[in-house]
Amino acid sequence: MRQDYEKIENELVNFLKNEMAKTGFKRAVFGLSGGIDSAVTALLCKKAFGKDILAVLMPSDTTNPKNTDDALKLCEKFNIEAECVSLKNMLAAYPLSLDGEKLRRGNLCARLRMSILYDVSSREKALVIGTSNKSEIILGYGTMYGDIACALNPLGQLYKTQIFGLAKHLGVIDEILTKAPSADLWEGQTDEDELGHTYANLDKVMFAIFNEGINPDVLKQSLGGEIVEFVLQRYESNKFKSQLPKIAQI
Amino acid sequence: MRQDYEKIENELVNFLKNEMAKTGFKRAVFGLSGGIDSAVTALLCKKAFGKDILAVLMPSDTTNPKNTDDALKLCEKFNIEAECVSLKNMLAAYPLSLDGEKLRRGNLCARLRMSILYDVSSREKALVIGTSNKSEIILGYGTMYGDIACALNPLGQLYKTQIFGLAKHLGVIDEILTKAPSADLWEGQTDEDELGHTYANLDKVMFAIFNEGINPDVLKQSLGGEIVEFVLQRYESNKFKSQLPKIAQI
Repeated sequence: MRQDYEKIENELVNFLKNEMAKTGFKRAVFGLSGGIDSAVTALLCKKAFGKDILAVLMPSDTTNPKNTDDALKLCEKFNIEAECVSLKNMLAAYPLSLDGEKLRRGNLCARLRMSILYDVSSREKALVIGTSNKSEIILGYGTMYGDIACALNPLGQLYKTQIFGLAKHLGVIDEILTKAPSADLWEGQTDEDELGHTYANLDKVMFAIFNEGINPDVLKQSLGGEIVEFVLQRYESNKFKSQLPKIAQI
Repeated sequence: MRQDYEKIENELVNFLKNEMAKTGFKRAVFGLSGGIDSAVTALLCKKAFGKDILAVLMPSDTTNPKNTDDALKLCEKFNIEAECVSLKNMLAAYPLSLDGEKLRRGNLCARLRMSILYDVSSREKALVIGTSNKSEIILGYGTMYGDIACALNPLGQLYKTQIFGLAKHLGVIDEILTKAPSADLWEGQTDEDELGHTYANLDKVMFAIFNEGINPDVLKQSLGGEIVEFVLQRYESNKFKSQLPKIAQI
């Protein structure tokens, strides 16, 4: 797994600059949650586009306030313009019952954030920059048409392990570096609890299968059958999230 | 352009059945607007899945009430279960100003509808069936992550002209057959006004370019330079809507 973060940084900043130039747009917007992926995205955008960026904070009523604080602190340190758009009133106005439906509620929040972010991008004449990393994409640990949705995604080929390395290299604040990864879609949620495995172990399995092309059956002997099966099963049942709608051919 | 609607109907119903079977789901949900595309989608779903379908009406405060009436009338005629989920309160709770921003408001409505439809699909353990046709897809006349979003799209290879033929063949009610196509995102909006060309003419151009492979420069001499240029320009500037996010390769 690559760890030459200086070089990775340059490649990703160039990617952002080059792709932006192709579109004719000049500005970037992105959601900033207080987590590590969006922090790294923010700093890459800052390096690529300077002042022409806007971080959009979209807390819900279950968002941990510490995440909002951390996001604002990052913006202050790196002089990034931020705008806060709360989901609270929209959720209160949501017409269907979500009682006891925390997964549905979480996915709804992710899609409302996408809706807001795309609206802001239209107001700002800006591109939406995504924050999904390769671990999440392979495991399908994201909301289709929610946090996965974007125009450009700089992090989609980096495993979570590498995001931490890149974050440290870029100077992401300790408050964000040291917290447990979480979609923060409900109180106390952490990725690793929910997935039942650490990213360190999951990334090893995914890198071996998807980058090195190692046969999963061989891998089971060295890394354990359960985690290899888990990754394969998540990948198979979630790969539709990274695909376009299936159109009938006539 | 194919007009063998009996055969097309069978192909599309088989597509829906086969693709649904592959996923392990048994139920379908779709948005029903009172327009012709979603009416055709509804009737194809009815034929494919019988009682295991749910039509979701999602009027906003600018939706023409006639469209809701027509949608309900269609459901009554074909014995389709319908649920109405208004956007009104969510729009009232939307935290950003949309004054004078009818395009932004329209796109927001399309994305809120997607958010609701996916939430309903989760509640119903159902797949979201899309309603976009080939004319809209090529012209980019739809909202990315809004009405374009779905799991399966039965109509994506049919031009609007063919949708009318198929609708008539399927017995879509006259109220829907005879109204001017409209995204109904604001009062008085019609597709053909907004596009500045009739679907009859646009479809001729698109079929010639995208199905028959006729050189656009040759086509300009027979069908007129302006409309050919219009189609090519719309296609080029909107094709991103049918593409996945661009991920940085490292």
